[in-house]
Amino acid sequence: MTTYSFSPDQKMYQIPNRNATKKEIIKINMLCEKQKKRDKKIVVIQGLGFVGAVMGALVADCEIENKSKYFVIGIDLPSQDSFWKIATINKGNSPYKAKDPEVEKIFKRTILNKKTFLATWISEAYSEADIIIVDINLDVDKTIPGKVEETDVSIANFKKAMVTIGKYMNKEALVLIETTVPPGTVENVIKPILEKCFRVRNIDLKKNPILLAHSYERVMPGENYIDSIKKINRTFSAVNKKALNKTREFLNDIIDTKNHPLWELDKPLASEIAKILENSYRAVNIAFMYEWTLFAEDIGVNLFEIVDSIKVRKGTHDNMRYPGFGVGGYCLPKDPLLAEWASKYIFKRKKHLNFSIDAVKINDLMPHHTYDLLMKGLNYHIKGKKITILGASYRKDVDDTRNSPTILLYDDIINSGGKPKVHDPYAISMFDRKDIRIESDIDLSLANASAVIFVVDHAEYVNLSMKKIIKSLIAKACIVDGFNVLSDDKLYYLKKRGFSVLGVGKGHIKNF
Amino acid sequence: MTTYSFSPDQKMYQIPNRNATKKEIIKINMLCEKQKKRDKKIVVIQGLGFVGAVMGALVADCEIENKSKYFVIGIDLPSQDSFWKIATINKGNSPYKAKDPEVEKIFKRTILNKKTFLATWISEAYSEADIIIVDINLDVDKTIPGKVEETDVSIANFKKAMVTIGKYMNKEALVLIETTVPPGTVENVIKPILEKCFRVRNIDLKKNPILLAHSYERVMPGENYIDSIKKINRTFSAVNKKALNKTREFLNDIIDTKNHPLWELDKPLASEIAKILENSYRAVNIAFMYEWTLFAEDIGVNLFEIVDSIKVRKGTHDNMRYPGFGVGGYCLPKDPLLAEWASKYIFKRKKHLNFSIDAVKINDLMPHHTYDLLMKGLNYHIKGKKITILGASYRKDVDDTRNSPTILLYDDIINSGGKPKVHDPYAISMFDRKDIRIESDIDLSLANASAVIFVVDHAEYVNLSMKKIIKSLIAKACIVDGFNVLSDDKLYYLKKRGFSVLGVGKGHIKNF
Repeated sequence: MTTYSFSPDQKMYQIPNRNATKKEIIKINMLCEKQKKRDKKIVVIQGLGFVGAVMGALVADCEIENKSKYFVIGIDLPSQDSFWKIATINKGNSPYKAKDPEVEKIFKRTILNKKTFLATWISEAYSEADIIIVDINLDVDKTIPGKVEETDVSIANFKKAMVTIGKYMNKEALVLIETTVPPGTVENVIKPILEKCFRVRNIDLKKNPILLAHSYERVMPGENYIDSIKKINRTFSAVNKKALNKTREFLNDIIDTKNHPLWELDKPLASEIAKILENSYRAVNIAFMYEWTLFAEDIGVNLFEIVDSIKVRKGTHDNMRYPGFGVGGYCLPKDPLLAEWASKYIFKRKKHLNFSIDAVKINDLMPHHTYDLLMKGLNYHIKGKKITILGASYRKDVDDTRNSPTILLYDDIINSGGKPKVHDPYAISMFDRKDIRIESDIDLSLANASAVIFVVDHAEYVNLSMKKIIKSLIAKACIVDGFNVLSDDKLYYLKKRGFSVLGVGKGHIKNF
Repeated sequence: MTTYSFSPDQKMYQIPNRNATKKEIIKINMLCEKQKKRDKKIVVIQGLGFVGAVMGALVADCEIENKSKYFVIGIDLPSQDSFWKIATINKGNSPYKAKDPEVEKIFKRTILNKKTFLATWISEAYSEADIIIVDINLDVDKTIPGKVEETDVSIANFKKAMVTIGKYMNKEALVLIETTVPPGTVENVIKPILEKCFRVRNIDLKKNPILLAHSYERVMPGENYIDSIKKINRTFSAVNKKALNKTREFLNDIIDTKNHPLWELDKPLASEIAKILENSYRAVNIAFMYEWTLFAEDIGVNLFEIVDSIKVRKGTHDNMRYPGFGVGGYCLPKDPLLAEWASKYIFKRKKHLNFSIDAVKINDLMPHHTYDLLMKGLNYHIKGKKITILGASYRKDVDDTRNSPTILLYDDIINSGGKPKVHDPYAISMFDRKDIRIESDIDLSLANASAVIFVVDHAEYVNLSMKKIIKSLIAKACIVDGFNVLSDDKLYYLKKRGFSVLGVGKGHIKNF
């Protein structure tokens, strides 16, 4: 039976069969022999997600004295969910759309021109690698939003992926973990797996200790997608001196370490903690602001201007967050839970990281509040009404819909009998919920809606003309600004024209 | 009966009797008439605490075109607790010791040379004021540390002080509230009190609406005590346009607004919230780090180097806090509770500001953890042993012992049968606990101690020689670094010499 993998833009790719796989093994092997003769180092990337794909292109693009130093093979699974990434990359395209114009260019350049990058699905490629970079997902399974006590970390698949590496890898290859893992995973989970594989393969661990390192990325899809890998400080660590030195050398090639120096920590546990602590801090600061959002609305002050007034304190308060609609993306909704999981299952602690847990709980459920404002604005009559949600991605001007907070709002509206329409100028499908259709035509989306909810500050929404809103919506429609997308004077303008206007964090809309 | 007021350095001042008060009234009245003839504006400061005293000196020091613009009268109570401040100031000295050399100079200059500043205890002075600045305390009564649910805000005394102003003030005077108050206090508590006083005095509130404003300081006693008022952004607000304009003009005179522009918010509730939110944010970020401190110690990593590695992310993470001993001072232990109190009693809300409440709980009890480390280091044998605590003030190189976290540790040691000695090079008495003696001789304090605990990073402690520690303490004594006062290499050095060395946040002390 032939099966297919569909890309988000609905392009169809045939998943390779056994015969194609046999041919691919031979092809990759020959290609690598050729590259090695040319003195190229082979880098294999495990996982072609938001990090792995672009990381692969970046490594492939690296030149030392005008000569490409690395030949990069990106590996993902020949599955319905993943094969399209391999096919897309091999055509010279980025699997992810982003505002950063460098993204498409770097894929074209490395795949088609330099020919230093290709994608494949065969595990045999690991055996060719001088360096293996792990960029696969390690997910947290949340059954019910906000019920973070019932979450589990899907470590089983991750372990299997490590076994695959251990089976195939060259005994002198460096394995560099970039995946965000529960602290302790490198030394307590990955290292034992690789060592077991070496023992099975009769490799003497004394002569060939596992060369294992950890270094976390700070990728941010969007306008500066490439620079968020290349021009940002890197923290790294390794299980031994040799692995540490190899990692340092490699990162110095790839990252602009002149302007963004490397930061060496003394063991993998320390850099694993750093990644999680960094994101937990962010998650807590967002959740903290949520409580003040409710307070500000209840007592009639505009929290945005208050936060602005506090942010002038540089160095202590300038990173304060604003009220918002919710938290999405791959990292913040799960990373704080990885620490709690490690604390419980790897280190058998009984104490909890309560702030981190509470933050995820609050952030997960935050979109309910925008729904509450909607209901208030509609005077609790929602049945059968067209409700337009402007935004499916969680972040300004990107197409990334992983853990989109829009989903919770969408479901709230459905559950109360409303008819939600979701619009986004970038995203074409909802990562976690294929049943939610995303419209791309803003006029159709707004036409005759009883309410419109702004949930992300895409440029198209910030620049939306007031005239268009007034013309499209029904009279006295409800307008909810969930993310400070419209300025206060716009909101006041709409209010004066009879619309029911509400804003998250805006207990008070100034009269201009 | 003659009663006396004692300053922290045990100087004795006779509290004025009725006769002295009568004379003082006449003196102040004559003085003010003279100043008014010279076109001076009279500013009366209510409360000569850490803010009011220095604020008074700053206003008195203000010159416009080389001429003093303001004549300042500082008022405090003729009580045992407070009269010494009045007497100290009138001698040309600051009531508070600080490392900032400008502090003593500005008191000398304004009191003795310019003669633009004096302190008194008579309420009649309010009637002379063009501007009344409220800098009295508004305390939170905590019965048991960590039991923040049982706290109450002592608003009664604050209300009485407002009545005094309302009784005496000129109907055109500006009342500027600098005291940190529960949000809503200016419009829901102070304004009604002043209006009631005006009505009793038959003042037409339509012709003479109360001129009431709010502006919060960001004073930090220490090296930059003066600049922490003068060279820092100010947020302000007022109940009407006239009060707003008067406040703006006044603040422009006093504060370096060219480099630190004023920030105007549209109502007192907004700026009251800003102050509390600013400090709650800080308190939460400290408490958040506490949970990670325990985690780091349990799993054997050094949280300081991890936080350093994260802080390179400028703008989002560079204000992350380090693990520490505890939280003291006037603001952080109480301000977050003022918001919760206002939410409950002024705005009758049922929702809570849980992050803020939890933060105060955690921060209040944090010194218990340093005690736990001490016990571990002593192998749980503490009875009868001399335990030296280095630090009584809560902050580097200041003498401020308000809400000092040292108290909790001191009591823990007493309760388990140890013999605590508290040393501090700056503080001479413990603000909230006169029974705790503070030693100033470091040699005597350290001699033959079974343990030493560093709780604040005073320069004297940071520079303490390892030889002195080794010579003073008994063999194999316990050394606990509660505040990252000693570097890791020093700690390792002491460990190698047989001492039992532990550090808050230091699950791992590097081998240099």
